[in-house]
Amino acid sequence: LNKHAKKKFRNLFLSLHGYEQSQIFAKLDLNQRKISYALLTPKELANVFDDTEEDPVETAKYLEEMDSQYAARLLTEMYTDNVVDILSGMRPIKQRKYLNLLHGDEAKQVRDLIHYEDETAGSLMTTEYIKVTDEQTIGSAMQQVKREAQEAELVTYIYVVNKQNILVGVLSVRDLITHGDEEKVANVMTTRVLAVDVNEDQEAIAEQVRDYNFVAIPVVNQTEELLGIITVDDIIDVIDEESAEDYSRLAGVDTESVTRNPFQTALKRLPWLITLLFLGMLTATLINHFEGLLSEVSVLAIFISLITGTAGNAGTQSLAVAVRRLATNSHLKIWRLILNEIATGIIIGIITGLCVWLMVGLWKQNLLLGGVVGAAMASAIFVANLAGSLIPIGMEKLGVDPAVASGPFISTLSDLTSVLIYFNIAQYFLQLFIR
Amino acid sequence: LNKHAKKKFRNLFLSLHGYEQSQIFAKLDLNQRKISYALLTPKELANVFDDTEEDPVETAKYLEEMDSQYAARLLTEMYTDNVVDILSGMRPIKQRKYLNLLHGDEAKQVRDLIHYEDETAGSLMTTEYIKVTDEQTIGSAMQQVKREAQEAELVTYIYVVNKQNILVGVLSVRDLITHGDEEKVANVMTTRVLAVDVNEDQEAIAEQVRDYNFVAIPVVNQTEELLGIITVDDIIDVIDEESAEDYSRLAGVDTESVTRNPFQTALKRLPWLITLLFLGMLTATLINHFEGLLSEVSVLAIFISLITGTAGNAGTQSLAVAVRRLATNSHLKIWRLILNEIATGIIIGIITGLCVWLMVGLWKQNLLLGGVVGAAMASAIFVANLAGSLIPIGMEKLGVDPAVASGPFISTLSDLTSVLIYFNIAQYFLQLFIR
Repeated sequence: LNKHAKKKFRNLFLSLHGYEQSQIFAKLDLNQRKISYALLTPKELANVFDDTEEDPVETAKYLEEMDSQYAARLLTEMYTDNVVDILSGMRPIKQRKYLNLLHGDEAKQVRDLIHYEDETAGSLMTTEYIKVTDEQTIGSAMQQVKREAQEAELVTYIYVVNKQNILVGVLSVRDLITHGDEEKVANVMTTRVLAVDVNEDQEAIAEQVRDYNFVAIPVVNQTEELLGIITVDDIIDVIDEESAEDYSRLAGVDTESVTRNPFQTALKRLPWLITLLFLGMLTATLINHFEGLLSEVSVLAIFISLITGTAGNAGTQSLAVAVRRLATNSHLKIWRLILNEIATGIIIGIITGLCVWLMVGLWKQNLLLGGVVGAAMASAIFVANLAGSLIPIGMEKLGVDPAVASGPFISTLSDLTSVLIYFNIAQYFLQLFIR
Repeated sequence: LNKHAKKKFRNLFLSLHGYEQSQIFAKLDLNQRKISYALLTPKELANVFDDTEEDPVETAKYLEEMDSQYAARLLTEMYTDNVVDILSGMRPIKQRKYLNLLHGDEAKQVRDLIHYEDETAGSLMTTEYIKVTDEQTIGSAMQQVKREAQEAELVTYIYVVNKQNILVGVLSVRDLITHGDEEKVANVMTTRVLAVDVNEDQEAIAEQVRDYNFVAIPVVNQTEELLGIITVDDIIDVIDEESAEDYSRLAGVDTESVTRNPFQTALKRLPWLITLLFLGMLTATLINHFEGLLSEVSVLAIFISLITGTAGNAGTQSLAVAVRRLATNSHLKIWRLILNEIATGIIIGIITGLCVWLMVGLWKQNLLLGGVVGAAMASAIFVANLAGSLIPIGMEKLGVDPAVASGPFISTLSDLTSVLIYFNIAQYFLQLFIR
């Protein structure tokens, strides 16, 4: 590239939004990236990295390619929460290297944040917010906002603390511009301000922000000292992450991690499949136990997969409903849910059982056989349906996230119970018939 | 309640956040609600209804309980997007009644919005935003913000239009407070402003807001005229809604609609179960076709559910991965995904097949039988795994949302293919063995 082309590229690139810049940057190869480090100032590249959706591990790799002075300035310009994301994925030696490159103040902020546990308020919060004291006037607060607006991640809310740095109120930018310069912050601010504890789980925070329609929420420690804020864009990422997690778990597979290598993909899926294979072998030994019956009345084998499959489907349905209900409704009456599922299971079981009785009875011209299959189907559905809601409820009681229960697990478990029910019913009735 | 208690309740209630007020309001009975209509001004109650999470249908019922003047003032005070949600759920006669009660201006705004299709930008947007022209000065824009701040749903961004109401730029409140009063809006504003079309689908908008970390996004018509804005709180609701939809579909059931009545619940789950029952009957007729083989070698029946179950699990895994990949990655190379799933299916199939060969071979002291079951397992997994990714890809090509493909459907379909594979392999090898 000659000088003119470089300037043109620079201007074009800078006219884009940070997210678009990051999309372009992700497509560059090593040489092109090296050129971009020369063309863009650390501040300009910081903007790109702040808006990137890339893995922090990827971004850490880019840092390695840069001259360390450039990297240090880049990190200084980035929002602290993003710097923490990048550094916390590094090995300790690397992490220390970059912390040493940062200015004392900035390094301290990052160091403070890096120790918070993943998925807590502490790991999500940023320290770039505007904080005034309750003794300031609106005018001086406004002056401060003007000074700090460029650095802050959010100017819509200004948080008010007292001399001990205890959070005492919040000012909206609306309050600032609609009140006179002479008024005291303490008289204008809203004193009812909801804050979250620094160790609070991210899912609970996301729920609050969603329910209250917040744009940001302040984070405090046990003594109500203001430590940082969490902005709504990070909350959206949390909501996305948590819902992807629930989705993955329902299918018994990690749907998010993109691997190019089929061996790695297989390695991620196999543990669950093999675990369930052992449960499936249990079902097989159970059928084996009934081999005498099967060899006598081989027609029974025809309906094994019909019964196990349908019961598994019903179980998966009730599982998904129970998991969602438990996740979204904190005032849920557990007994109501169970009773409702019992009644629903009975209704679904009877209707499906009757359908099967007719279908099998007419097909095989044998209403007794149809009755056996239908009754087994009805019972198997009832059991699978109930298990689908009892298992997540039990997990919740044990303090395990109910979303861990997966559809494949419920289907495989219901294979076992369905087979047990089917052959017992068959044995009982067909003995009557044969004798 | 005496006068003093009323005043106390009023003060306590008003000190709460709108979301908390709405939580309390939802628990009141008819009489208590009537008292609250007397105690609270329409404006105060509007705040409650704006932050409510209740069904708009429920809120419409409350309106009916009020005196119509009160209802009209309440609707006037609410944000237009929420009024539209409530009115659009009503029967036409009721809707017209309330539209007639509203002031001419307000009624027109609601009427304009009510016709936009559900799940589009038009149905999400609000008209309470601050709009200035490019010829104003920063000072006059600031004056306008001060005047309109109380009514607007958002003051962080001020949208700039030209004389023809065409969107030409955006001002952040940061820009307003850091620039001099005399400067022209046109010189300060950002001219690169991303807007969405009024007919754009809500899912696409949610993606943009998430990727770009927006707090709001303007909505325009085909001639770029500014019609409204969508704020991030509505986007969070969209993200929640869409992810709940995907989750529901994976389980083949609507997990969201809460019904207290088990008959209604059963009615919602039965259609899918019965549909899959017919597919299951196909599998049964297929096994029926092999009854001769089964009666000869009844040991084969033991492994039917092991093979169909495991293949179904593998199919569900690959389905979930494909659906998520298609939903989140617009630049996905379809052929890469298919090739990757083919390779993954081969690896998973071979490993699981080998496990099964050993387990069955040792258990039954018959390595040929183990080999038959293992080979059938490997092939059935390969096919189910491939079907799990091909079906959503095919749906995407046909313009159907891939998320419609459900886990139960894939398992039931894979029952059919698994049985076909199993009995064909068994027939071929056991014939060799028996002769």
